[in-house]
Amino acid sequence: MSQPLSTALLLRRHPERAMADRAAAIAVLDEARVCHVGFVEDGRPWVIPTTYGRDGDLLYLHGAAVGRLMRTLTSGLDVCVTVTLLDGLVLARSAFAHSMNYRSVLVAGTAVEVVDVDAKLHALRCIVDHVLPGRWDEVRPPSSQELDATSVLMLPLDNISAKVRSGAPVDSKSDRALTLWAGDIPLRQVIGDPRPDGAVCESLPLPRSVVGLLE
Amino acid sequence: MSQPLSTALLLRRHPERAMADRAAAIAVLDEARVCHVGFVEDGRPWVIPTTYGRDGDLLYLHGAAVGRLMRTLTSGLDVCVTVTLLDGLVLARSAFAHSMNYRSVLVAGTAVEVVDVDAKLHALRCIVDHVLPGRWDEVRPPSSQELDATSVLMLPLDNISAKVRSGAPVDSKSDRALTLWAGDIPLRQVIGDPRPDGAVCESLPLPRSVVGLLE
Repeated sequence: MSQPLSTALLLRRHPERAMADRAAAIAVLDEARVCHVGFVEDGRPWVIPTTYGRDGDLLYLHGAAVGRLMRTLTSGLDVCVTVTLLDGLVLARSAFAHSMNYRSVLVAGTAVEVVDVDAKLHALRCIVDHVLPGRWDEVRPPSSQELDATSVLMLPLDNISAKVRSGAPVDSKSDRALTLWAGDIPLRQVIGDPRPDGAVCESLPLPRSVVGLLE
Repeated sequence: MSQPLSTALLLRRHPERAMADRAAAIAVLDEARVCHVGFVEDGRPWVIPTTYGRDGDLLYLHGAAVGRLMRTLTSGLDVCVTVTLLDGLVLARSAFAHSMNYRSVLVAGTAVEVVDVDAKLHALRCIVDHVLPGRWDEVRPPSSQELDATSVLMLPLDNISAKVRSGAPVDSKSDRALTLWAGDIPLRQVIGDPRPDGAVCESLPLPRSVVGLLE
């Protein structure tokens, strides 16, 4: 079994970048759409991207019951779930001081399977509504067969750490005297036009969830 | 020590989403700016976001020599480096068929430290130029002190697997008959206006690297 977990470990480098505010860390989880889940199988690390949901102090993950991730995790395994929002490029006058602006949250702990049907449906609602708020109520809910084919895991947000870097590069005083351009370049994600699939009748209006996303 | 690695393991689920083309997988590595590095420490998984570079069949990672990642990796440890580009939301008529459009690459292997000074400088050039092509030649190169404070790791691209999902949702025939909107919504990253830092003189033009990025 693994060693006890200490969140102090997570912040050994650049402690000034730690987000002290738990609410700010949770806001990052709520803004991002994909996490990277790390786990150990046969002594080897694996990192898999997936969607997730959050309700209060619980993070939900899901996947096909036969998939690599779920097959491994349903026994209650240690995971590290990391979410990163990339906010920009940081271009300094020295190669060394180049960096990125970002907000990143790391949740470490032991994920356990959600087996109760109602709890599982609630978790899936959280996951679908995380991708697009309000979407769950617009669509056909899972059949019992679909529910059986999906595993859901929950991870308590007990060990959560967050880091943020923002703003201009930090060059030394002597580097700042060089006649070199330095600064930062923001990056952001934009939402394109919804593309109805081939079976959507032309007169069907956009659902409220999509209208909300585009506002 | 860990078990031998089989990339077949990586594609057990949704094998139809595998990118057969190695060049396409490498194009994903080249397009993304941040990777998530997974490693095992004291039996526990950790996933940390970082920048990287690529040259041919080598991936380069770097970090402060005293940092968690590098302290762990310099002994030549198993890592899993995963890169994900999120391309859109996939909104189906059933909760179950909701998905994301994405391109993701997973590189598994043993990372080893680059110690030769010239090789290290080359790796750092790859990393800086990965963030912004041409930037290395515009800035002050690392001093020997800075070089000592940075560790560089290389990971061969021997075990690389990639997955892609694109296009419309895949609803069942009976679901497609429901009067529900379904489709996909593209997401993309856009580059904002460069913001010079406080020490840049107003008459200084944008460097070629930044002009290239904005084109």
